Amino acid sequence: MRIDELPTPALVVDEGALEHNLRTMSAALPGARLRPHVKAHKCTSLAWRQRREGHPGFTCATPKEALGLAAVGLGDDLLLANEVVDAGRLEALANAAARGARITLAVDSDATIEAAARASLRDVVIDVNVGLPRCGCAPEEAGRLADAARRAGLSVRGVMGYEGHTMVVPDRPKRRELVEEAMQKLLRAHADVGGELVSAGGTGSFDLNVWATEIQAGSYVLMDTAYDKLGLPFRQAFWVLATVVSVSPAYAVADAGLKALGMDHGNPRVEGGSVWFCSDEHLTFAPDAGRPLRVGDRVRVTPAHVDPTIAYHERMHVCREGEVVESWEVDLRGW
Amino acid sequence: MRIDELPTPALVVDEGALEHNLRTMSAALPGARLRPHVKAHKCTSLAWRQRREGHPGFTCATPKEALGLAAVGLGDDLLLANEVVDAGRLEALANAAARGARITLAVDSDATIEAAARASLRDVVIDVNVGLPRCGCAPEEAGRLADAARRAGLSVRGVMGYEGHTMVVPDRPKRRELVEEAMQKLLRAHADVGGELVSAGGTGSFDLNVWATEIQAGSYVLMDTAYDKLGLPFRQAFWVLATVVSVSPAYAVADAGLKALGMDHGNPRVEGGSVWFCSDEHLTFAPDAGRPLRVGDRVRVTPAHVDPTIAYHERMHVCREGEVVESWEVDLRGW
Repeated sequence: MRIDELPTPALVVDEGALEHNLRTMSAALPGARLRPHVKAHKCTSLAWRQRREGHPGFTCATPKEALGLAAVGLGDDLLLANEVVDAGRLEALANAAARGARITLAVDSDATIEAAARASLRDVVIDVNVGLPRCGCAPEEAGRLADAARRAGLSVRGVMGYEGHTMVVPDRPKRRELVEEAMQKLLRAHADVGGELVSAGGTGSFDLNVWATEIQAGSYVLMDTAYDKLGLPFRQAFWVLATVVSVSPAYAVADAGLKALGMDHGNPRVEGGSVWFCSDEHLTFAPDAGRPLRVGDRVRVTPAHVDPTIAYHERMHVCREGEVVESWEVDLRGW
Repeated sequence: MRIDELPTPALVVDEGALEHNLRTMSAALPGARLRPHVKAHKCTSLAWRQRREGHPGFTCATPKEALGLAAVGLGDDLLLANEVVDAGRLEALANAAARGARITLAVDSDATIEAAARASLRDVVIDVNVGLPRCGCAPEEAGRLADAARRAGLSVRGVMGYEGHTMVVPDRPKRRELVEEAMQKLLRAHADVGGELVSAGGTGSFDLNVWATEIQAGSYVLMDTAYDKLGLPFRQAFWVLATVVSVSPAYAVADAGLKALGMDHGNPRVEGGSVWFCSDEHLTFAPDAGRPLRVGDRVRVTPAHVDPTIAYHERMHVCREGEVVESWEVDLRGW
């Protein structure tokens, strides 16, 4: 099938840019130095492509992601980098571990440690707040929690701490400084906790964070307009393909809207035009001067935030020279 | 099942508030005076509830919504209030019509008329721009397009025009004035077009728009924080239930984030606290003073925009007095 035959809105991946991003990252962070985060793409087919690039483990944000990876044979070393207290889901994770997957869960409190122990999970990391007000214990609490986890029968593999507040700081030296500051907190916690893992980082700090033992980057593989501003060596590899359905003298309307695009980082970019606004199923934009559009024309829309965009779509279509060469299910979405 | 046993994030509907909204709207706009828009809820079970309230027809934003309603026996009078040029989808709509559904398609250009005629669809309305820069022809073009549609063998049932730019104007007299101005444009177009339908309106104008023959409101049935500000007689009837997974001295973190919430209208509200920010799977918020939270506590999160929130979820759970009494699939999402 040609790209232009896809019903729209459609999530389209450029195979060349994808391969470039995979190779660039595996050259910078080979093997276990990268623990790709699947939350950005939620797609086991793409995770398999990352595995074949040499990365043995994965980072997950939800039990569904971890269980889905384990189910397709990618469960050798999964870090569920999030706190989970749902008894049913913890039991499902323990069952997957009993069938051979290695699933390491983030814990940051006595309550999450007790929940993990109650479900007979084995491996945990202590999640440390390194500056982003989200999950994670205070660095000075990490040692005490590690002791509590070990007393509860859990194996503590180390620490994790996501320096998300630094990720899209545009100035690179400033970003490096903030990453180092965050990682000093994580290393102090690690000194109290022990274990082989110091897991941190993301696409914005992949080559700046030299303190973590592994980097949890995920967005690098597809990219978005927010990361594009940082001058990283990764290429925009996906877009939402839309069809122009209405043309007026001053603007045109395409069929990709709020239900096809993650909007928390703001409006998307549109090829050959300037976005006015999005509504539920539409994108209203002004075409560039000298670019007459007709109903039925296709336009490429680049989202501002990759993760919540992908989560709206059932499939992504991998394309090479105008042809759809593979269609991958976004099989890890939902919870 | 008790509400508190639902795995989170979960879309929860309060049956009492839902019934209140259904009854309030059907009292104000009985029978065919309301053509409920299903794009807000994307759920045939909820559409059936609207049908039992006495509304015979529905408004749809996508072919999938129209086909899905027709497939469950709700195809008596469907208005697909959007331009469609995809040949495969137009053929599917024509096939559903051949099996007995009545599907009326919006057209706003020669190209969309030709596409509808080529697919052997029968019924159209002329979509008129009444002030919102989206789809819709200029009012003075409507008569010419109606003639072209009739020459192409289509039955022109009238006009539609969505006054979306007026919908959340907080001042009610101002909103009424803008609605009237928009509807004067639509009525001028209707004078040139003819037909029995003047279809327009939404939740923000349901009792102000006395010019349209039918109102396309959809959000009224579940509501969101954007509409809540207008002082309408509808109650907030749904929320995203989340579990607190981490608690710090100044803030707490719950497990509903950017992939569970439509964010284009801004942050959601959280019961008993103030939202700081959302990330992919988390909501960071400051609990109100004197409200100590513990890991495992549940909180209700009210989204700013209902439509793109629902589109992230597989199911909605209807609840009465703390019990889940029905679970409805969000079966019309996607395209």
